[in-house]
Amino acid sequence: MTLTAARAPLRRGRTCGAYADVRDHSRRLAEPLSDADATVQSMPDASPAKWHLAHTTWFFETMILKPHLPGYREFSPVFGYLFNSYYETLGARHPRPKRGMLTRPALDEIMAYRAHVDEAMERLLSGDPSAEVETLAELGRHHEQQHQELLLTDILHLFAQSPVRPAYREAGPALASEGAAPEAAWLGFEGGVVEIGHDGDGFAYDCEGPRHRALIEPFRIADRLVTNGEWLAFMADGGYRSPLLWLADGWAQVGAEGWSAPLHWEQTDGVWRVMTLNGLQPVDPDAPVAHVSYFEADAFAAWSDKRLPTEQEWEHAVRVSGAEPPVDVGDPLARLRPRPAGEGAGLKQAFGEVWQWTRSPFSPYPRFRPAPGAVGEYNGKFMCGPFVLRGSSLATPPGHARASYRNFFLPDKRWQFSGLRLAEDA
Amino acid sequence: MTLTAARAPLRRGRTCGAYADVRDHSRRLAEPLSDADATVQSMPDASPAKWHLAHTTWFFETMILKPHLPGYREFSPVFGYLFNSYYETLGARHPRPKRGMLTRPALDEIMAYRAHVDEAMERLLSGDPSAEVETLAELGRHHEQQHQELLLTDILHLFAQSPVRPAYREAGPALASEGAAPEAAWLGFEGGVVEIGHDGDGFAYDCEGPRHRALIEPFRIADRLVTNGEWLAFMADGGYRSPLLWLADGWAQVGAEGWSAPLHWEQTDGVWRVMTLNGLQPVDPDAPVAHVSYFEADAFAAWSDKRLPTEQEWEHAVRVSGAEPPVDVGDPLARLRPRPAGEGAGLKQAFGEVWQWTRSPFSPYPRFRPAPGAVGEYNGKFMCGPFVLRGSSLATPPGHARASYRNFFLPDKRWQFSGLRLAEDA
Amino acid sequence: MTLTAARAPLRRGRTCGAYADVRDHSRRLAEPLSDADATVQSMPDASPAKWHLAHTTWFFETMILKPHLPGYREFSPVFGYLFNSYYETLGARHPRPKRGMLTRPALDEIMAYRAHVDEAMERLLSGDPSAEVETLAELGRHHEQQHQELLLTDILHLFAQSPVRPAYREAGPALASEGAAPEAAWLGFEGGVVEIGHDGDGFAYDCEGPRHRALIEPFRIADRLVTNGEWLAFMADGGYRSPLLWLADGWAQVGAEGWSAPLHWEQTDGVWRVMTLNGLQPVDPDAPVAHVSYFEADAFAAWSDKRLPTEQEWEHAVRVSGAEPPVDVGDPLARLRPRPAGEGAGLKQAFGEVWQWTRSPFSPYPRFRPAPGAVGEYNGKFMCGPFVLRGSSLATPPGHARASYRNFFLPDKRWQFSGLRLAEDA
Amino acid sequence: MTLTAARAPLRRGRTCGAYADVRDHSRRLAEPLSDADATVQSMPDASPAKWHLAHTTWFFETMILKPHLPGYREFSPVFGYLFNSYYETLGARHPRPKRGMLTRPALDEIMAYRAHVDEAMERLLSGDPSAEVETLAELGRHHEQQHQELLLTDILHLFAQSPVRPAYREAGPALASEGAAPEAAWLGFEGGVVEIGHDGDGFAYDCEGPRHRALIEPFRIADRLVTNGEWLAFMADGGYRSPLLWLADGWAQVGAEGWSAPLHWEQTDGVWRVMTLNGLQPVDPDAPVAHVSYFEADAFAAWSDKRLPTEQEWEHAVRVSGAEPPVDVGDPLARLRPRPAGEGAGLKQAFGEVWQWTRSPFSPYPRFRPAPGAVGEYNGKFMCGPFVLRGSSLATPPGHARASYRNFFLPDKRWQFSGLRLAEDA
Repeated sequence: MTLTAARAPLRRGRTCGAYADVRDHSRRLAEPLSDADATVQSMPDASPAKWHLAHTTWFFETMILKPHLPGYREFSPVFGYLFNSYYETLGARHPRPKRGMLTRPALDEIMAYRAHVDEAMERLLSGDPSAEVETLAELGRHHEQQHQELLLTDILHLFAQSPVRPAYREAGPALASEGAAPEAAWLGFEGGVVEIGHDGDGFAYDCEGPRHRALIEPFRIADRLVTNGEWLAFMADGGYRSPLLWLADGWAQVGAEGWSAPLHWEQTDGVWRVMTLNGLQPVDPDAPVAHVSYFEADAFAAWSDKRLPTEQEWEHAVRVSGAEPPVDVGDPLARLRPRPAGEGAGLKQAFGEVWQWTRSPFSPYPRFRPAPGAVGEYNGKFMCGPFVLRGSSLATPPGHARASYRNFFLPDKRWQFSGLRLAEDA
Repeated sequence: MTLTAARAPLRRGRTCGAYADVRDHSRRLAEPLSDADATVQSMPDASPAKWHLAHTTWFFETMILKPHLPGYREFSPVFGYLFNSYYETLGARHPRPKRGMLTRPALDEIMAYRAHVDEAMERLLSGDPSAEVETLAELGRHHEQQHQELLLTDILHLFAQSPVRPAYREAGPALASEGAAPEAAWLGFEGGVVEIGHDGDGFAYDCEGPRHRALIEPFRIADRLVTNGEWLAFMADGGYRSPLLWLADGWAQVGAEGWSAPLHWEQTDGVWRVMTLNGLQPVDPDAPVAHVSYFEADAFAAWSDKRLPTEQEWEHAVRVSGAEPPVDVGDPLARLRPRPAGEGAGLKQAFGEVWQWTRSPFSPYPRFRPAPGAVGEYNGKFMCGPFVLRGSSLATPPGHARASYRNFFLPDKRWQFSGLRLAEDA
Repeated sequence: MTLTAARAPLRRGRTCGAYADVRDHSRRLAEPLSDADATVQSMPDASPAKWHLAHTTWFFETMILKPHLPGYREFSPVFGYLFNSYYETLGARHPRPKRGMLTRPALDEIMAYRAHVDEAMERLLSGDPSAEVETLAELGRHHEQQHQELLLTDILHLFAQSPVRPAYREAGPALASEGAAPEAAWLGFEGGVVEIGHDGDGFAYDCEGPRHRALIEPFRIADRLVTNGEWLAFMADGGYRSPLLWLADGWAQVGAEGWSAPLHWEQTDGVWRVMTLNGLQPVDPDAPVAHVSYFEADAFAAWSDKRLPTEQEWEHAVRVSGAEPPVDVGDPLARLRPRPAGEGAGLKQAFGEVWQWTRSPFSPYPRFRPAPGAVGEYNGKFMCGPFVLRGSSLATPPGHARASYRNFFLPDKRWQFSGLRLAEDA
Repeated sequence: MTLTAARAPLRRGRTCGAYADVRDHSRRLAEPLSDADATVQSMPDASPAKWHLAHTTWFFETMILKPHLPGYREFSPVFGYLFNSYYETLGARHPRPKRGMLTRPALDEIMAYRAHVDEAMERLLSGDPSAEVETLAELGRHHEQQHQELLLTDILHLFAQSPVRPAYREAGPALASEGAAPEAAWLGFEGGVVEIGHDGDGFAYDCEGPRHRALIEPFRIADRLVTNGEWLAFMADGGYRSPLLWLADGWAQVGAEGWSAPLHWEQTDGVWRVMTLNGLQPVDPDAPVAHVSYFEADAFAAWSDKRLPTEQEWEHAVRVSGAEPPVDVGDPLARLRPRPAGEGAGLKQAFGEVWQWTRSPFSPYPRFRPAPGAVGEYNGKFMCGPFVLRGSSLATPPGHARASYRNFFLPDKRWQFSGLRLAEDA
């Protein structure tokens, strides 16, 4: 694999450099993985690491190289079938629940596919790419960054299925506290008609716009995330056994799945541990709780006599308080690390620790219309069922977070780094 | 059964009369049913007619008579277990999917249960009932009215399972046109901050409030419902075979269930027929389409290059245009009949024909808080998954419809009288 | 219903009388049932009573009247679709799991269907019926008798689903002991080549022949059935918690279904009761255990350090010891009653109490070939999966039992009156 | 991996050499596999290759080394949990459907586990092992051979799931004809009381005994296997669309799974191909059909107006005609190759091509009793549901086949090398 050599010339232009950075980040994420680690699919919701690495590459090949690089030679005719995710526009595809059957092509061959596409992308980007290519390349980079986070959450889920509890890495960013969590402070906001959505500066997904006015009632929001210690109190108070705290579907799920703690938690000899990318670790009572579903977050809020914020409240509070996503500092492990709690005026832990469930179903903003063609199949077709999460997590790659970002998952899902922040009416 | 005699004295007071009217309406709805018709459960979503008749009675017995009528003698100790629907507060209950196993108690005994409760309610209401009792009795009446509509949709679903296609009644209200449907006119609204929700005059469910301000963008809404003829055009144009028109979950459902037409439609020798309460009838191209899911309504709107209205847009348009629910004219069959199309300024067919899907997920209004105790388990716990339908249908009992009413069903459900009205951005 | 009058002339001939007796027995079995009781299907394995009553009638209409009675007028064209059970030869049919959706036709109409067919059968049988008609009528009678037993077991299963635990009848044949069960005696047999199968005298199903030689090794068989008291000892000794006693599939079933006692047993305040046709009754320790699956019977035998007999051993032991099925004594309730234990030389309780699981899979006898046409679809197509039960039960109608009878059910089924008798190698 | 070196001393004794041969054969089978190939589980019925390699090793470690080799050091305490298959006696175990989640331990580590156990086994066997150890070692070898065949069928199933259709090996034993298949000849046998079961000379599984007498009626059996060409004729004649040919459960399976050809067959541009260990190959009309279920074999026999043989008929015919299993000729690929058709008097293709379905359910022989303890959990607990297959296949390792061998699979399974030979009554 001579990916490093092949990538050197990419540094020339800005787009070229950004492309190389993102692609390189994926490569680094794959380094700790064996071929087998990268192949297995632990559940239909998750995808194999190899699939993430190939699918993001297929996106560049299909959306950019084939239509825009004359003479481009397709790496393999079968890859279009194997690595299309869900684009009905782009033909038949391998069924999602069978992604884990693909022991061949091996990880090596996927890395060769990546090098092949990188070489062609370099040629295209280091020339004088059209605005359309620039735009598609930007979309492709952000698309790959999304999959970088999923690669990590999916690997964590896979490793959590193994009784030997493998660690993805020996050390790295973790949801660890630096001392006792302070009491939560309640930040008040007046409400009124505010601007919501992406403001047109820099990249954003289609669903983050159009920017529009929203009416917000006065509210208060906690300046920090809910902690593991608070979650343990909820558990100790019978939170998982009190139907009145739960949405009806949530309570049914508690029963069907036997939920009694967040995902990846296990209790041995009275001690709670949680499976992390660094292996099985004691639950840190001062760190933010992660791996809870919307159902659990909502029940916890009811138990606290609070509620979850709407996504508009969250976005407004973040903008007003000036909370900022983490900045890339060059070191691939360090840059994943969240800023120390306490930094930023007012609202803390907005980014870089855990995604925060809001009470907002994932719905189109006023005047939203999906783009025509394949790229329009991006977000709109999922606007039924999921709830919006805001912020970012320790697994979000550098440069991917922003205040208008709308992550979304179904309310019963727990394998993401998903936590919560409380709110209330003022 | 001496229900009529027993009910006579109820006429004394206003509450008393309203109670008797509602209870009598249920009795009439059950008249065409055999014991067997009233016993069978055609799917887990539906309940047996007998169960509706008993559950609504149990509500009065449990919420009002037991706590408020001294010396009240419970009809049967096992009925609490059998006829609780989903109130976790009120103890264990018979599993919903097994409601159809209850061949005993027979319909006769359920009617005796109704008479027993009616007699006690009469005593309570014809005395000097407390404000709390009045309030609970009002809730109980509206609760029973909801089940009156469900009784009809559930019976229709049951009869549609039978190859002999029984008619519930020989003649009665139907979704029939009176001549060719006119071209849809598009009513424009300016938007702005408007008042939404129940205004406090008369009864409303908890979820219809609190009344609050909402910001609406300029929009247009069709003055009439989508017709069967328009739906046939959608079908003929490959609507059910075009994945790009559909939400992802909707498209999966189309494949899994083999949808190719609304529920209860069947084609024989090239002719489309639809199963109705009056038996199998030819599809009337000028009547509003019914028995479509949210998924289908949304796909139809995409095919039409329009969208569904939000529930705020719908409510605002109805209030501004002065559309009114049907009035009770005393004749139990006539009063179910919708007003002639064309009546009312501007927005037609808002009430009395089919419920209209909106694009709004069923979410709490700002500052909504469920009531404490069992009555608080009414709507809030379902605020995850369903979409809101507005208006009312030909199966909605007289006096039950209003502009602020929020009906809600999961997006794949089709057995209600659910149709649609289109909207677009202005 | 004037079935009695219509039936009077049937008494003329022998076939005629036999036909009338069987048909009348079904009518009596239906007497305690309401329309709703007769309509509901409690699980896919069971059928509604109404369906049994109609399907057996459809058999006579389809196999005999249509081809053999000139001018016969079909009762209803849709009944062929509704009441065909599984005959692929005879066209499309209503899906088995939806038999409970047929609230119409009502029980009354089914009884009218029976009268219509009875009247025609009378005309045919009281004339000079051909040998083929006589043969088919005999098959139809035995077919109806099979369904008479199923009608009872299916009704018992339905009533057991209802929390009110209705009794099918106030009093009637029951699995009750007449004093303490004696110690089991072990009857020894020498083995050798013996004759097995129906000997051609009187009616038998196709699968009971051809009569053939079988080689049996020396064995011993218990002279009586396993009792509830013995089963309670098995339970107390952890029988349902000891995987090594069970077949692998049986143990999986124990876990999946949470088995800890026979079907229809429930424990309240430390007392075991069993749901019977006479309602909920205390478990009688001296009566034979019923409602156990093959898996349970096999595990019990392992726990007892014995085994189940093969069907050849059972048949041989019954023939040699001269055990006889109960005789019809005219009184419909009395004739169902088993002979007092102790009667008959040697082998007791072979008939009239519970069917007895054997260790023999239901396989074809040597040289067995199904008959051509629809009647050939009778037993052969089920020869994969079920195990054979021998004897008869308290629900078997008079005249239906014989030594060569091969009843068969899948090894996890428990809703029949199925028990066991132990055997061992000599 | 220095397995070869470690194994050299094993050659000393006979047991030692046999042990080394079997272990070496497994190692060779794993050679073409990547870590990922060896990790993925393609369906719950199949196991990962890595699991087969580890489980067979665990068997030696658990049954022999721990109890019989003083001072033996367990390789890993977690392996007992991971690699127990189904022995209830031996404690909790990793759930079978999750065997594919174990990306760690990697294939390398499994091979190290094998070397660790081999080294210890060598020490034990090259000493003066007790008779018990010799017996257990023999059982362990045959157990491993069983898994060698499963490893191949499971890998074939996995590779068949991949759209790239990988070949396990470039060349190797295949079901290929050497010229046109001759007409089948029918060999006649007189029947009578014959001896069946293992005769005590050499190794056999518990279920192959006790040797006992069986009564066989006169029959004829085809001298060769059913071919692909004959199967194509069955397909062309509507075999998969004719319900009357099928057992009831078989016909249900045809509908549920959409069967229209054997497993692993696919048709492209009118040409039938079959996925094999050598990759996708044209269907050879003269080679024996493989990958058919019992249901299909039975339906084919009905279509042919024949039947499947009983296992007793098969064994008797093989013994009388002197058909012999293939002999090991030292070359690991060659020795898997079946003897040329035509060799052996009378009955051809009894061994080394495809297993042959019999009509016999897998039941205990007379006087069969499972051994006490863990080794007794071997076969007896599966004696409910499966049917017996006789002979051996091209995937059966050398030295593993014998005339008394009873292979068994559920009647719907098709992923083994399973075919058929016809029989009929004489």
